Amino acid sequence: MLAEIISTGAELLTGATLDTNAHYLAKELQPLGIQVQRITTIGDEEEVLRKAFQEASQRSKLCLVTGGLGPTDDDRSAQAAAQAAGTELEPNPTARKYMEEFFRTLSRPLTSTDAKQALLPKGAEAIPNPKGTAVGFSLQIHQCHFYFMPGVPQEMKAMFEKYVLPKIKNTLQTPHHGLQTLTLFGCREAEAAEILNDFPQLFPQIQLGYRVHFPQIQLRLYYPPKANLQNALDWLKQKVGKWIVSWQGRFLEEEVPHLLQKLGLKIAVAESCTGGLVSDLLTNFPGSSQFFLGSVVAYSNSLKQHLLNVCPQTLQKYGAVSQEVATQMAKGIQKHSQADLGLATTGIAGPSGGSEQKPVGTICIAIAYQNLSHSWRFCVDFREREKNKLFFATMALESLRRHICKKYNLKT
Amino acid sequence: MLAEIISTGAELLTGATLDTNAHYLAKELQPLGIQVQRITTIGDEEEVLRKAFQEASQRSKLCLVTGGLGPTDDDRSAQAAAQAAGTELEPNPTARKYMEEFFRTLSRPLTSTDAKQALLPKGAEAIPNPKGTAVGFSLQIHQCHFYFMPGVPQEMKAMFEKYVLPKIKNTLQTPHHGLQTLTLFGCREAEAAEILNDFPQLFPQIQLGYRVHFPQIQLRLYYPPKANLQNALDWLKQKVGKWIVSWQGRFLEEEVPHLLQKLGLKIAVAESCTGGLVSDLLTNFPGSSQFFLGSVVAYSNSLKQHLLNVCPQTLQKYGAVSQEVATQMAKGIQKHSQADLGLATTGIAGPSGGSEQKPVGTICIAIAYQNLSHSWRFCVDFREREKNKLFFATMALESLRRHICKKYNLKT
Repeated sequence: MLAEIISTGAELLTGATLDTNAHYLAKELQPLGIQVQRITTIGDEEEVLRKAFQEASQRSKLCLVTGGLGPTDDDRSAQAAAQAAGTELEPNPTARKYMEEFFRTLSRPLTSTDAKQALLPKGAEAIPNPKGTAVGFSLQIHQCHFYFMPGVPQEMKAMFEKYVLPKIKNTLQTPHHGLQTLTLFGCREAEAAEILNDFPQLFPQIQLGYRVHFPQIQLRLYYPPKANLQNALDWLKQKVGKWIVSWQGRFLEEEVPHLLQKLGLKIAVAESCTGGLVSDLLTNFPGSSQFFLGSVVAYSNSLKQHLLNVCPQTLQKYGAVSQEVATQMAKGIQKHSQADLGLATTGIAGPSGGSEQKPVGTICIAIAYQNLSHSWRFCVDFREREKNKLFFATMALESLRRHICKKYNLKT
Repeated sequence: MLAEIISTGAELLTGATLDTNAHYLAKELQPLGIQVQRITTIGDEEEVLRKAFQEASQRSKLCLVTGGLGPTDDDRSAQAAAQAAGTELEPNPTARKYMEEFFRTLSRPLTSTDAKQALLPKGAEAIPNPKGTAVGFSLQIHQCHFYFMPGVPQEMKAMFEKYVLPKIKNTLQTPHHGLQTLTLFGCREAEAAEILNDFPQLFPQIQLGYRVHFPQIQLRLYYPPKANLQNALDWLKQKVGKWIVSWQGRFLEEEVPHLLQKLGLKIAVAESCTGGLVSDLLTNFPGSSQFFLGSVVAYSNSLKQHLLNVCPQTLQKYGAVSQEVATQMAKGIQKHSQADLGLATTGIAGPSGGSEQKPVGTICIAIAYQNLSHSWRFCVDFREREKNKLFFATMALESLRRHICKKYNLKT
């Protein structure tokens, strides 16, 4: 079923308010297999609203409208809807009843300004507002069924979930579409797209979408009930398997915490070039204190020696950006914190500080686990300090994920 | 001038991605006196795009389009724009040059998929992308001047600010306006807007715009050559002076590094609830190793004792989230690192971990400077872990800024 969403309100066009309603509604319709083909944001003028409703009624079978139901002069959705449907406003007794009930719970009398909200287009069906005074309504305009809801997000969501969504589900005769999301790290979107170029021909029933969360990518597969999803997944594994970090669409900053929680492992981190970002990402996970003990961000060599027991000779011989120093940092934080795992980063995020042997983009990562340690060195420069930091931190998480999967015999 | 904005991309219609581009652009056009009359969000289909471009070209004089410029199959903005303008795609040498330059800085070859992005409609003018490979372009369609920009917000913003905005300003034919930006911290946008409600009446020549960089706000003043800016600034100081953190529009994560560099001060940080974010923000500043020595993220009490010399009795008596523990953390890191300043945070970011005495949103901040220390306690809950962390970290930077300004007799 084709649908559209119309957000109304001058405040959305001046940038004063960010519209989150349309995004919320689109997300709710998606798993029902309803295809939102357009979202329109317009102001408060009656004529503009009427035109937009009429246009939508010719394109779609379902239209969700938010805003313009309040008691003030710039609330004109009902009037415009009546015009678009070729009818007029009339007092709606059910709407009036819903409003009186709500005002009773507030112990407040209904003013004449408020009462304006009980005027609805002829033929409209009133919808209660569980969280406010503005009554919603549904109305058929040409081929399209419209639901008019308030613009205040809380009120809109409450009305949608309780009344509108069940009505929409009832009218649906098709089974739902599924969504499977995979996360990739290590390739660019363009690279993945080139490799997966044949997908639409091979699996015409399945829609493949991309979403970038730098430096990670999500592949999103929308599939109808009878599609052979497994074949598509097997093909993807063959093509981009080496980059897949999660078959559940988790990003590394979620996948690593999941693994650590599942295995009951505790981690501590020693950071240099990532400057606290690895710790920040891990502690964005609610309940991270269960697996994250802490970290040392050792920018200065003196702190590397003092708090992480990095040996001055190693610093002198190999330099601060070296696998040797990374290894000592990982061991140092593991020992201090008594964590199961120590993870360390040292590198050059730029824009300055690079040399011929160690250009900007060089990153050394080390992991200390039990009595063993492993270290790696890579070099990728995105020409932006913050991007480099984020790439380094993600690389550290990926190194850790691979290490854990290997040690515990887990498949990605 | 009437304008509209078109956001393209299937991911915006499925609810996978929240469109923030249109909101950003609406906000940028508002102070220029350009009236956005419609924002449309559509998918990737060429025919849908073409129609939307044609409709917009009949309603408006200016249209900003985001998305659909990438290298993959679902990037069809250029093709649809060509059709709407009644022309076709052709290799655009300037676009090709911009792309080659960008790939050179990445030391990466141009693939044939990438090269697709250098095909632009005949008559289009290529616009460089300072942060990515997708070249933008401008094109006249009927009465309307279109600017096509990438959908990735960072790339779009960089391209808009550097290239598109100056072009739009030029076409406005009004004299060159100046821009003065102020940064505020401590109030919400709606609060500031209410307090500054009389601004347009008092200073009709000066346009006031808002930009949110949570939890900080920028006030943007566009003023014509002869406007009395100083009067407006004096008035603003009187109204919102207590929240102004920079008269140059710097955010705290830039202002604090500036101050530290200017005064030759070195800092080290001890974090608990902010989980590394204070360090991450400070180390995003290029050359941060000049003033930032390092930090300890002590999530576990054992690390607080072990690496920061927090006294077990203090932890037991006052709890980990207390001004007393924050103070010991600040002193501990100051001592270990021999920094001029020690900054510490401990609090409850949520969603769990709160209590009646210390609800989610509680944050204790301490600063150790020379032999003295200062500490503060606040409580604000944004009902989102990452938002709370960012608020806490920003609050720590603001506490530090105020402390430094007081000690060194600097005005904001």
